[in-house]
Amino acid sequence: MPDMHARRRDRLRVAVAASDADAALITSLVNVRYLTGLASSDAALLLPADGPAVLATDFRYALTAQRECPDVELVTARMIDPALGQIAAGRGLRRLAFEAHDMTVERHQALAADGSLDLIPLGRAVEELRVTKDERELALLSRACAITGEVFDQVLPGIRAGMTERELATAIERAMAGAGADRPAFETIVASGPNGAIPHHAPGERAFERGDMITIDCGAQYRGYHADMTRTVVLGEPAGWQRDVHALVAAAQRAGIGAAVPGAAVAGVDAAARDVIAAAGQGERFSHGLGHGVGLEIHEAPMLGPAKPGKLSDRVPITVEPGVYLPGRGGVRIEDTLVVRSGAEFATARDLLTVTKTVTPGELVAL
Amino acid sequence: MPDMHARRRDRLRVAVAASDADAALITSLVNVRYLTGLASSDAALLLPADGPAVLATDFRYALTAQRECPDVELVTARMIDPALGQIAAGRGLRRLAFEAHDMTVERHQALAADGSLDLIPLGRAVEELRVTKDERELALLSRACAITGEVFDQVLPGIRAGMTERELATAIERAMAGAGADRPAFETIVASGPNGAIPHHAPGERAFERGDMITIDCGAQYRGYHADMTRTVVLGEPAGWQRDVHALVAAAQRAGIGAAVPGAAVAGVDAAARDVIAAAGQGERFSHGLGHGVGLEIHEAPMLGPAKPGKLSDRVPITVEPGVYLPGRGGVRIEDTLVVRSGAEFATARDLLTVTKTVTPGELVAL
Repeated sequence: MPDMHARRRDRLRVAVAASDADAALITSLVNVRYLTGLASSDAALLLPADGPAVLATDFRYALTAQRECPDVELVTARMIDPALGQIAAGRGLRRLAFEAHDMTVERHQALAADGSLDLIPLGRAVEELRVTKDERELALLSRACAITGEVFDQVLPGIRAGMTERELATAIERAMAGAGADRPAFETIVASGPNGAIPHHAPGERAFERGDMITIDCGAQYRGYHADMTRTVVLGEPAGWQRDVHALVAAAQRAGIGAAVPGAAVAGVDAAARDVIAAAGQGERFSHGLGHGVGLEIHEAPMLGPAKPGKLSDRVPITVEPGVYLPGRGGVRIEDTLVVRSGAEFATARDLLTVTKTVTPGELVAL
Repeated sequence: MPDMHARRRDRLRVAVAASDADAALITSLVNVRYLTGLASSDAALLLPADGPAVLATDFRYALTAQRECPDVELVTARMIDPALGQIAAGRGLRRLAFEAHDMTVERHQALAADGSLDLIPLGRAVEELRVTKDERELALLSRACAITGEVFDQVLPGIRAGMTERELATAIERAMAGAGADRPAFETIVASGPNGAIPHHAPGERAFERGDMITIDCGAQYRGYHADMTRTVVLGEPAGWQRDVHALVAAAQRAGIGAAVPGAAVAGVDAAARDVIAAAGQGERFSHGLGHGVGLEIHEAPMLGPAKPGKLSDRVPITVEPGVYLPGRGGVRIEDTLVVRSGAEFATARDLLTVTKTVTPGELVAL
């Protein structure tokens, strides 16, 4: 898809020119992938405001870069920063806009050392471009979400008392590979019983017991795009407090999803869900933001939280994931990935991407 | 294992005092894990040369940190850098040694902004401590390697013409989860036929054909520790050139392994293997270093290469992985993980950790 990447680079050139730089030096590997298609653990892109892009990587990725990125100039080097620095200086690209949120102090010092370059901050220009997805990206994200739902449906019937958190997490990650995921989008969370009060609990040796709520937070990665979904189920007959907490979180999620329309302030979407939980006196127990953008990274802009700036718009995928965490007892989180949509061809202002046949978001399924 | 982590912190305190800093600010997440036991995507450690360590993380990891790190002072904060900066300033810890190879320019600027801290470079002090493993680390690494060999033996009989690279990579990663790995240690490489000439080929849709050499580079991660193993096999009767290249790489690997003894210069170990390949006129086709340290990271110190400094010593795990890559035709790489050992209780100067029942390093197995 060389055209697609060339179009992205052209959009970035506008930002580079506006920042008064001669060129951008893109070091964030995910941003390099977005702008060139190359997935590499050692690559950087020199993008002049006016002139051909130069992609540097080491010999391990040279043949892949030749094949995947035919429309950029390629440089293979053991040390990519000095190689690009030299090319920039040689072409009179003296003012380089760099990614201060990505570049380490050490790399920055080495680049600045000989004084031939003037390094100015680019800010999160590429991340801003990445917020709105194109239809090809949405198709990949949608596939990642479909795999996630499929895997969830597949493992759910196998959950029983005596199985450990780690065993379930392993079963999920195996099923993902089998269902066509490149890999899990993040480390699968399985939090049972009291561990459910830990939002990012690492699955351990705790064995499920009857009466446990089990929070499962998982996602597939597909061609670089990340899905994110959480369900909380109960093993056996739910207790009254479990039903109440689950119903509360489900109501908050519905409110959050309902508020996620083009033009909505992200803080307003967060508030729509948070108000439901606060009104039930559990505001203190919802200790994180409502959700986040997803794409080439599992967490990317926009972040949805009480004090976050910005508005949603067409083709922005986000998660909506309220939770209530009760220390010592357990917790509930419900999360879906959706895309905010506008235009007459869409029945609603959003597409829900994560879909499970077995557990709808509002339902407390008893296993 | 609080004692183990406390001992590691005490060793680092010596380096901090030597650097003339009041405290170290450890931001590398793998270094934080090494020094505290906490695996978190958002954590940092303030380690005074003299005084209690302060571990900061966000609320998602707070309960885990309480449980796993009972012997350090804990701070839960949404923004961990300012929280630790304030604590440091409040305790008169003005000169902070920071990890310039990890900290971004943006974080550094934010920390330095109010002028109350004096930030000086710590260098790779923690990475240097991590080179020599303790027996507990070696046991975990050994388990990671054993899982890797087991998985390889399990998938090998399933390889046949028509199977794609991606299918084999998926089968390996599924088997890893089943065999007890936490996850793959890195993205599995399967490179068949001409793709074998790409050292870090990403497995794609190419289907295996009879006559292909197939390079499989995989490893399990177990409790944070990474295994790394490569075998090159052939589908069908090997051609003469395939036998020759494989025998050459195997001979180079034997030479490299033989040279890996306590006290050996890493450049000398590299040379022992490289000379074998160069003597056969293929020196240009071995385009990377001979190997690398392994532990909490898949690539860590020491790096084995022609111009690398340093010597091997007791309890240092490394990989030995020569390769010969022939553009357009294919390639061979053979890799094992071993631990350099000294002491009368060891029969040789090293323990080979990766073991496969089906393919010894020197053998070209025809499937």
